[in-house]
Amino acid sequence: MSVTLDALNAADRAAFVTALAGLLAPLPEAAIDAAAAQRPFASVTTLHEALMRAAAADAPAVFGVLPDLSASDLRDASAGESGPTPEQAATLARGVAAHRARFGLPFVLCATRHDPASALARLTARLADDPAAAQAAALAELGHLLRQRLAASVDGPGLPGVNGRLSTHVLDTHGGRPAAGVALRLYALGAGRRLVTATTTNRDGRTDAPLLSGAPLRAGRYEIEFDLGPYFRDRVPETVGNLFLETVPLRFGIDEPEGHYHVALIATPWSYTCYRGS
Amino acid sequence: MSVTLDALNAADRAAFVTALAGLLAPLPEAAIDAAAAQRPFASVTTLHEALMRAAAADAPAVFGVLPDLSASDLRDASAGESGPTPEQAATLARGVAAHRARFGLPFVLCATRHDPASALARLTARLADDPAAAQAAALAELGHLLRQRLAASVDGPGLPGVNGRLSTHVLDTHGGRPAAGVALRLYALGAGRRLVTATTTNRDGRTDAPLLSGAPLRAGRYEIEFDLGPYFRDRVPETVGNLFLETVPLRFGIDEPEGHYHVALIATPWSYTCYRGS
Amino acid sequence: MSVTLDALNAADRAAFVTALAGLLAPLPEAAIDAAAAQRPFASVTTLHEALMRAAAADAPAVFGVLPDLSASDLRDASAGESGPTPEQAATLARGVAAHRARFGLPFVLCATRHDPASALARLTARLADDPAAAQAAALAELGHLLRQRLAASVDGPGLPGVNGRLSTHVLDTHGGRPAAGVALRLYALGAGRRLVTATTTNRDGRTDAPLLSGAPLRAGRYEIEFDLGPYFRDRVPETVGNLFLETVPLRFGIDEPEGHYHVALIATPWSYTCYRGS
Amino acid sequence: MSVTLDALNAADRAAFVTALAGLLAPLPEAAIDAAAAQRPFASVTTLHEALMRAAAADAPAVFGVLPDLSASDLRDASAGESGPTPEQAATLARGVAAHRARFGLPFVLCATRHDPASALARLTARLADDPAAAQAAALAELGHLLRQRLAASVDGPGLPGVNGRLSTHVLDTHGGRPAAGVALRLYALGAGRRLVTATTTNRDGRTDAPLLSGAPLRAGRYEIEFDLGPYFRDRVPETVGNLFLETVPLRFGIDEPEGHYHVALIATPWSYTCYRGS
Repeated sequence: MSVTLDALNAADRAAFVTALAGLLAPLPEAAIDAAAAQRPFASVTTLHEALMRAAAADAPAVFGVLPDLSASDLRDASAGESGPTPEQAATLARGVAAHRARFGLPFVLCATRHDPASALARLTARLADDPAAAQAAALAELGHLLRQRLAASVDGPGLPGVNGRLSTHVLDTHGGRPAAGVALRLYALGAGRRLVTATTTNRDGRTDAPLLSGAPLRAGRYEIEFDLGPYFRDRVPETVGNLFLETVPLRFGIDEPEGHYHVALIATPWSYTCYRGS
Repeated sequence: MSVTLDALNAADRAAFVTALAGLLAPLPEAAIDAAAAQRPFASVTTLHEALMRAAAADAPAVFGVLPDLSASDLRDASAGESGPTPEQAATLARGVAAHRARFGLPFVLCATRHDPASALARLTARLADDPAAAQAAALAELGHLLRQRLAASVDGPGLPGVNGRLSTHVLDTHGGRPAAGVALRLYALGAGRRLVTATTTNRDGRTDAPLLSGAPLRAGRYEIEFDLGPYFRDRVPETVGNLFLETVPLRFGIDEPEGHYHVALIATPWSYTCYRGS
Repeated sequence: MSVTLDALNAADRAAFVTALAGLLAPLPEAAIDAAAAQRPFASVTTLHEALMRAAAADAPAVFGVLPDLSASDLRDASAGESGPTPEQAATLARGVAAHRARFGLPFVLCATRHDPASALARLTARLADDPAAAQAAALAELGHLLRQRLAASVDGPGLPGVNGRLSTHVLDTHGGRPAAGVALRLYALGAGRRLVTATTTNRDGRTDAPLLSGAPLRAGRYEIEFDLGPYFRDRVPETVGNLFLETVPLRFGIDEPEGHYHVALIATPWSYTCYRGS
Repeated sequence: MSVTLDALNAADRAAFVTALAGLLAPLPEAAIDAAAAQRPFASVTTLHEALMRAAAADAPAVFGVLPDLSASDLRDASAGESGPTPEQAATLARGVAAHRARFGLPFVLCATRHDPASALARLTARLADDPAAAQAAALAELGHLLRQRLAASVDGPGLPGVNGRLSTHVLDTHGGRPAAGVALRLYALGAGRRLVTATTTNRDGRTDAPLLSGAPLRAGRYEIEFDLGPYFRDRVPETVGNLFLETVPLRFGIDEPEGHYHVALIATPWSYTCYRGS
């Protein structure tokens, strides 16, 4: 169900509040009402900014209705695939209680932007913060939540960016050309090791589709395995039984859910260079 | 128990044969006797060469007494740590029988130079050879066996090299200096993943002792994990929760048991280059 | 002055010959006439292929009218900027005469695809060939000449590719981002060193326009100088007076005039990696 | 002419002063006398430290006798090869006068540690300093001067390090081995471009002797040219006329005259990595 920005701009104040209250459950109606006064909005992004200003101005009310991050939020965000373990869920519950006790605030986190380990690491870091930083962090997370909901629900110009992208490229500097036909696999390394996608490089050494796209990247740790062995086998003397490079693992962290991570591999049978590119 | 090259050169023929027969069980006395005629030997290496010429000249007799590689050879070679699995032992037994059936020859392999997976890969490759290549390979392996025994048992100049070496070096090109204090672990990746050694780089970015030395390297697959996360943590903005590089795995094959493998890592928080150096 | 492929397909045979004879001076009319019989052509590329088949079938006549490469061809191809030196012109004249004497053939070379040094290197290589290879090479060069003329003169689908591209990209793996604002200069290294273009990387670490495009790349040697000093100055302690890297020269050869050369630089203040990418 | 540390420790005070005054012309006798009281010195380095403490304690007297850096100092330091140009000499004279005018201090610089361009750059930087920093810099340079003279003149344990070293290493990651037989040339890039040494890599990819050693490295800019073309020629298809990499220039700065600069090149026919190693 979505609504257009034009309709929101044209609606009477009560209708504006009702429309958005349905979409943005965690925001109190008073804050939405405050934003209504600033219409018309030229873009969805300026609507988002007005809502966030209103939320910041009425922070106590906002924090009164915002729920804590829960294990089921994390489970929903991962589409059931790599949700929190029972141990992680217990750690989360304890940490959330500590957060309430210490700051009198909910522990707000936009669940689609983190895998469980990354979410718990944020919670640990938050608990070491001072109260002002904790409140600022909670508002920032509310900002992420609202941005995603607006991007999903309101049609109009200036949609905020909420999706990230992970791409790769394999270059063969033994032969001086893109490395085509290299099988590769992306794993998410959370509690365990989960295959996310398996594909093969095309003739430009890239993959036909990004490894991840169309959604926020979940902050966490990942690994790509590149099968260089078959690609380089005939460039190495036959007498070599154990190739120096066979399957090359590249383990890396993602920290910007809306970012573009280009992870490149430049390889020979005896060396490789990998880096976060652009 | 060892003997000097001088003593072997000075011994009468029968004593020469007896001394070496005790050391070199797999070689028929006739071959040792043939080598005796070529004394004196200026070096242990020339003694080895003479024995191998004699063995090649009387190959049928040599192959008559040479035993097949057995699972217990592989187990002994690994000091019990990462010997063959029951499945590998069964595969070996079947392959050895096939080798006998196909070539009428024992499957000779110098066990200390291979981990079980590498030994089985050699056997598979051998079974695809033609008879002449199979015989040449068996003699070459006998050469490795004798070289190790002579190096261990005969004191004298010109000892043949039988030991390999694995070393590493971590360079920090973010700061322009060796990376000191980086924890690293070497694993052997055979049937499973076995920690071989754990250490930390010194102020020159190297390890105080080679990762492997003083013995032939066992051909097979290995991995070094380098903990770059703690080393680079304070070079990356604090707001970055998930570092791009944390633990960097470098997976590689060893194929020359007597070789020097220098595996170098040149790193920044956002990239690394690794290669087989020298 | 150009003509459409449709018009050429529809023209009567004599008009077809006349139209193309005007465009393709080096080709005898008989060869054009032979190609006319194969109309209609679905693409400019198939027209090119038909003309080349006709030329190959009547090679003696073709070689009878083809002129030798001359110093003024090289001068014209370079737009006057970096034409041959008097010494190169003399070497060319001597080599062309030797080519005629040795093979009874003109020395054919598509001048826009080579700088003078590269053209002379081709001539030297040609003189070491056997007659069959020399004739094949002359036909191949005619193919390049005709392809360029057709691409410039005939409007229609399936235009053959005659232009190359040189691009660059500077990545900062000290900071983990594209290197923006790096001044760089491209030089052609022929007889002397000629500045071709000077520009600065944009926020993606690339240049707004390719360094070379819209024409065949002239085979030869080139250099890009990247001014990394100002970019990295504040990442290195102030006490360092002479930066390790200041202006980084990357010297490389171009050999495929129609190719895409992507020359990338991945740098820190203490290291860099460069490669031909894609 | 040299003296032993033992003799200096044993000498009476006047003889100590006389001996060192001859060696250390720029130091006032009073400072030497003050150091004499702290004998015996366990090492030449502790003697140096004592002299520097005495100099710092009596800075006005020291600066009263210390000469300004002169063009002939730079010329002597370069063994006549790459001394300052007339223009550089004039710039130096003007700068020295400005330094006297601004700080009332000589412009002290240990000439063997800088090429003329680097010396002038130091002077420019010095002129932008505040008086306290200028005085500290002058004392630090006096420390370099004395250290070199003591190292050259006093025999004894604990000699201070005054020499630097520049070495290189070429690795071939196309073939997985050291690059042997690569011709290379080191140039000093001062006012002009002067060949310092030309050599060829040995079978370990290194040079038999360091490129520079046995003296302080003169801070300044340098370039090594590596002739990779002949080395890789037969790894690239014969049809390639202009190799991508032919002569590879590596341009770098030296800033630590007593340092070890290891400049490594890791190359394939299509890429290379270079870095300051260790």
